Amino acid sequence: MSDNFYILTGWWNSSLIATANESANESEQGTFILAGVLLSLVVIYFASKLGGEVCSRINLPPVLGELVGGVLVGISAFHLLVFPESSAAEKSLIMSILQSTAGLPTEAVPSVFATQSEIISVLSELGVIILLFEIGLESDLKELIRVGPMAAIVATVGVVMPFVMGTLGLIYIFHTPAIPAVFAGAALTATSIGITAKVLAELGQLSSEEGQIIIGAAVLDDILGIVVLAVVASLVKTGEIQVNNIIYLVISAAVFLIGSILLGRLISPLIVGLVNEMKTRGQVLLTGLVFAFILSYIATVINLEGILGAFAAGLILAETEKRKELEQQIIPVADFFVPIFFVCVGAKTDLSVLNPTVPSNREGLIIATFLILVAILGKVITGFTVFGNPDLNKLAIGVGMIPRGEVGLVFAGVGSASGALSEATEAAIIVMVIATTFVAPPLLRLVFKETDTIAESVDKVQE
Amino acid sequence: MSDNFYILTGWWNSSLIATANESANESEQGTFILAGVLLSLVVIYFASKLGGEVCSRINLPPVLGELVGGVLVGISAFHLLVFPESSAAEKSLIMSILQSTAGLPTEAVPSVFATQSEIISVLSELGVIILLFEIGLESDLKELIRVGPMAAIVATVGVVMPFVMGTLGLIYIFHTPAIPAVFAGAALTATSIGITAKVLAELGQLSSEEGQIIIGAAVLDDILGIVVLAVVASLVKTGEIQVNNIIYLVISAAVFLIGSILLGRLISPLIVGLVNEMKTRGQVLLTGLVFAFILSYIATVINLEGILGAFAAGLILAETEKRKELEQQIIPVADFFVPIFFVCVGAKTDLSVLNPTVPSNREGLIIATFLILVAILGKVITGFTVFGNPDLNKLAIGVGMIPRGEVGLVFAGVGSASGALSEATEAAIIVMVIATTFVAPPLLRLVFKETDTIAESVDKVQE
Repeated sequence: MSDNFYILTGWWNSSLIATANESANESEQGTFILAGVLLSLVVIYFASKLGGEVCSRINLPPVLGELVGGVLVGISAFHLLVFPESSAAEKSLIMSILQSTAGLPTEAVPSVFATQSEIISVLSELGVIILLFEIGLESDLKELIRVGPMAAIVATVGVVMPFVMGTLGLIYIFHTPAIPAVFAGAALTATSIGITAKVLAELGQLSSEEGQIIIGAAVLDDILGIVVLAVVASLVKTGEIQVNNIIYLVISAAVFLIGSILLGRLISPLIVGLVNEMKTRGQVLLTGLVFAFILSYIATVINLEGILGAFAAGLILAETEKRKELEQQIIPVADFFVPIFFVCVGAKTDLSVLNPTVPSNREGLIIATFLILVAILGKVITGFTVFGNPDLNKLAIGVGMIPRGEVGLVFAGVGSASGALSEATEAAIIVMVIATTFVAPPLLRLVFKETDTIAESVDKVQE
Repeated sequence: MSDNFYILTGWWNSSLIATANESANESEQGTFILAGVLLSLVVIYFASKLGGEVCSRINLPPVLGELVGGVLVGISAFHLLVFPESSAAEKSLIMSILQSTAGLPTEAVPSVFATQSEIISVLSELGVIILLFEIGLESDLKELIRVGPMAAIVATVGVVMPFVMGTLGLIYIFHTPAIPAVFAGAALTATSIGITAKVLAELGQLSSEEGQIIIGAAVLDDILGIVVLAVVASLVKTGEIQVNNIIYLVISAAVFLIGSILLGRLISPLIVGLVNEMKTRGQVLLTGLVFAFILSYIATVINLEGILGAFAAGLILAETEKRKELEQQIIPVADFFVPIFFVCVGAKTDLSVLNPTVPSNREGLIIATFLILVAILGKVITGFTVFGNPDLNKLAIGVGMIPRGEVGLVFAGVGSASGALSEATEAAIIVMVIATTFVAPPLLRLVFKETDTIAESVDKVQE
């Protein structure tokens, strides 16, 4: 049914019969939702290509362009891609277009808008899941294990340093009370693996030793971020730290990552055998994705992140003979889904908190300047904790950990909802996230270029 | 934001803080929705591969297996994939799994279920849009124009014959009143292009003369089906035929198809030039998809079907130098989306109307037997109206037009909602749709094999 069913009955309803019966109404909604999703995808791809092409021409990473393209079509500028939770929800230009071209009735706007936005959100979440699966496929488990100790140090220092510097600075310089200071400090901890991994892939540095340390540290960082959130949250709620929860989290993360990789290596020959027996189209791709989605689901339900499961699945399958085939087939699927993620991140970024002519923004901007400094310094120095190989580009490792992205925003959102954060501190965290997210891609390219002169290989990857 | 944002706040809420604040609740919902979508995709791919592999082994078309796999996981059997509009909505096994593994609270089930189902429905609609784009890419516009007159005759005869035979038979044999008889007759008219095109592709017959006649006729059939629906609907509503509406529909369909192809051929060199200038990943694929989505959107808003736009986009781009590259890149994307469509069609098929031990089903089954005969005969004879080339496999052309699929179900649903159809007649139409959908793929393979002995090329396509 689906397609034709919705479209035909949608048409039928709007142009021929006014009988209001429930199922037909639902079908009519379905037509508008599909139309809205199609338009949103057109906007997303347009923004991602426009931004990506401009950035690649001025020698910046294309993913930065996708973020900026997202800002252009999002809440901060053209309102083509806005989400219900934002303040500009009622200004959605896509809904206006649907109203004027497809005859979407005004009273149906809220529900069509809500469902269409939820679909785009889920597509963007699938985008980052597929991105991490692809990153896992391109990673090397043995190399990751080898650089594991270094990655662990980078991750730990990169969590402790910004947290301590941020919290103490806010308390002693800005006289912020302890609880919001701890919250803001915690928001400085977790690296956004998506942005860093994408830039590394674009630079052809994913499989370099630096790249693998960054990826390993970012994965551990993700887990540490969840632990820090648990610690801070229980502090805010009960005034004390719920040790049980934290132990549970650390153990479940360790068991999941180590367990899925060990178990995965055991069953991956079975998976390859099964795929070799299959005769229908898409057997390699779909089997790989089913594996990734199952691990993502498990990671989600044990309160970790879905992307960790997808990354583990990619790591496991990268060790099989199907790696090359899978890598090739995942590319168009990633090309379809991943831009949705980055454009949505940009579209949800509200630049209005950066406007200094609004007096209430100023306090936030001053705190933000401090947080940005701490956020960058606190991660850059982590690179210099790396021991062993003296030829390593230590600056690049630290710079690779800079982008905070989504996790920082979770702290801001949850902190302000629980009343722990003042408006100025919340705005400052958002500005810090924006700055680190947008500054990391060009910086990363810069530090890799300066030392390595890998211009040719970069250009090759850009093709 | 998206991924981490939802997952982290979802986790935060469920395990640490019970503060009920709106945005956090929405985020928690987001986690469950994403988890539900991941599980649904795992179920869909499992069903499609299980069914497809079994069918390819017993020499039946894989797409039939995807449909049967869908039936197995859908409303008729395991209730893994059920939709809100069905009677078994509250029995969704995916929701039960989410409740027991992810801690989905009972009160959140209805809204999570509704959104998750809507997302799967839209993914399945994207599936048939991408399928028709792929079919368009593999079609040959010049060949289609050449076989156009033959396709037009096949389409027209294939609409008139079943309509007249069905309506008169119901009136004179079953003494059905005129209006429901006309409705049931109309339900016999429109071919389901998706199933036929997929089987043709699987048989390697898409670009044969027979294949192109079938595709051309099925596209025209789709348009005729919309017109017939308009005619019958106005008949039921007002007792007379609203000529204006019908003229509007016919003209808009003609203008859209001819206009988009003419205009598309004019601008396709610009598109190719633009793509050649682009340097970032996925430029060919995304530009092609943007073009397809725009035409789909236009087709949807002028009350045609989205798939017509996607087909036109494929036809236009097939004439450019990017055809090969686009064909290759669309394969993994189609492998991702298309099975969602076929499994959903199967999952929505309610086989309980076929149970003869339920007395109320029996009248419907008798009428259904008659409708199935008319549905098959009325299309099979169309092949023999084809003139010209005497070597054409005329039987195959007729058989290719047999599956009714979704459009027939629209007639059943709308007819029963408007009160024009009795329960028995509605059930009979549903049984007819099931039978033609499931019988066409093996029949089509049979008639192509008998005359052409193309076993080798079939096996090659199966790889």
